[in-house]
Amino acid sequence: MKKIAVVLSGSGVFDGAEIHESVLTLLALERHGFEYQCFAPNIEQMHVINHLTGDVAEGESRNVLVEAARIARGDIIDLAEAKAQDFDAAILPGGFGAAKNLSDFAVKGSDCSVNSDLVSFIKDFAKDKKPVGFMCIAPAMLPHIYGQGTQLTIGTDQETADAIKAMGGVHQSCPVEDIVVDEDNNLVTTPAYMLASSVSEAAKGIDKLVDKIALMLG
Amino acid sequence: MKKIAVVLSGSGVFDGAEIHESVLTLLALERHGFEYQCFAPNIEQMHVINHLTGDVAEGESRNVLVEAARIARGDIIDLAEAKAQDFDAAILPGGFGAAKNLSDFAVKGSDCSVNSDLVSFIKDFAKDKKPVGFMCIAPAMLPHIYGQGTQLTIGTDQETADAIKAMGGVHQSCPVEDIVVDEDNNLVTTPAYMLASSVSEAAKGIDKLVDKIALMLG
Repeated sequence: MKKIAVVLSGSGVFDGAEIHESVLTLLALERHGFEYQCFAPNIEQMHVINHLTGDVAEGESRNVLVEAARIARGDIIDLAEAKAQDFDAAILPGGFGAAKNLSDFAVKGSDCSVNSDLVSFIKDFAKDKKPVGFMCIAPAMLPHIYGQGTQLTIGTDQETADAIKAMGGVHQSCPVEDIVVDEDNNLVTTPAYMLASSVSEAAKGIDKLVDKIALMLG
Repeated sequence: MKKIAVVLSGSGVFDGAEIHESVLTLLALERHGFEYQCFAPNIEQMHVINHLTGDVAEGESRNVLVEAARIARGDIIDLAEAKAQDFDAAILPGGFGAAKNLSDFAVKGSDCSVNSDLVSFIKDFAKDKKPVGFMCIAPAMLPHIYGQGTQLTIGTDQETADAIKAMGGVHQSCPVEDIVVDEDNNLVTTPAYMLASSVSEAAKGIDKLVDKIALMLG
């Protein structure tokens, strides 16, 4: 049975992993008969956002791994312990956590850095051309991992696309129900909630991303 | 377009709404072409559970409405403001939040009480025989709302079933992929994560519950 690593970045669209995208990913993986294991970095979140008001919850702090455990129902492992050799593919759902916790893209744009455990974990997949899927804003990290010329999408947002180009990525506009495939790197991206207006819309692109990864795995 | 109220109880299986069940519910509703609106009570959680360790996070407190907003991506309304007349049906996902925040069933068993806003909201659906779906542990609240003889399932857990019987409910054992229908009350229940060992397993019963509600709505 194929085993897929799913890397989460907290729990909640505004300061962590996008919850719908994460659950839709797990569901699509299971429906393909894949096993999965969730991971998240054992670090503090950049901040906590009150998801009712959209404001920063001053004085509150939460741990990315502990919060991501909510999505994983407790079955989650510190990303620092993840070994690519144990997995056939990796997938990163989006949410601001990808741009706030796994990287600082939300703050620094094209000058961002990416969590070093994530970089080395995904680079091990890249080295062996194992399929990898990134969705929503998470693909903004890809030029730092796959290098110049990486083909990807974050949907249609021009400012984000420009920042990705500045890092050496090749951004392709893509509708919510579709995917962009970097065939050289076995890398699949989809806009998900960068464009989706609803959970069933997000599901279309996510299902297609997982279908493509399944195809790559044969 | 039919409009469905979804009542959440936080965000996370051990102290709030079960995240997979909640997202699967929203997805199933959308795929039927229904609109939905999420609600949650504006109250403090019974406690906060660290979902990585399973321990109570001492000294931490979180608000049910604010945390449920994570699942609803911010689009959620205080349950106290919910009016049944605006909706064609109501659904409650499970998670311990149903037994800790919406009621105190987790602590008091058959001596439990149920959040009064929830009771009056759902009683307004019951009065007009509008379809209502409860899943996972949430059906334990139903005898307090629908009264003696209410037919329901929470799966196969004998201790929970006994507590429900002590409150006047009629518990029926039910496998994870199935539903129990109380035809007199237009009430549908499914075990979801009371029995599910995975998200795709939970999806089977939840899809069936939403299918049945769709059928009731014509």
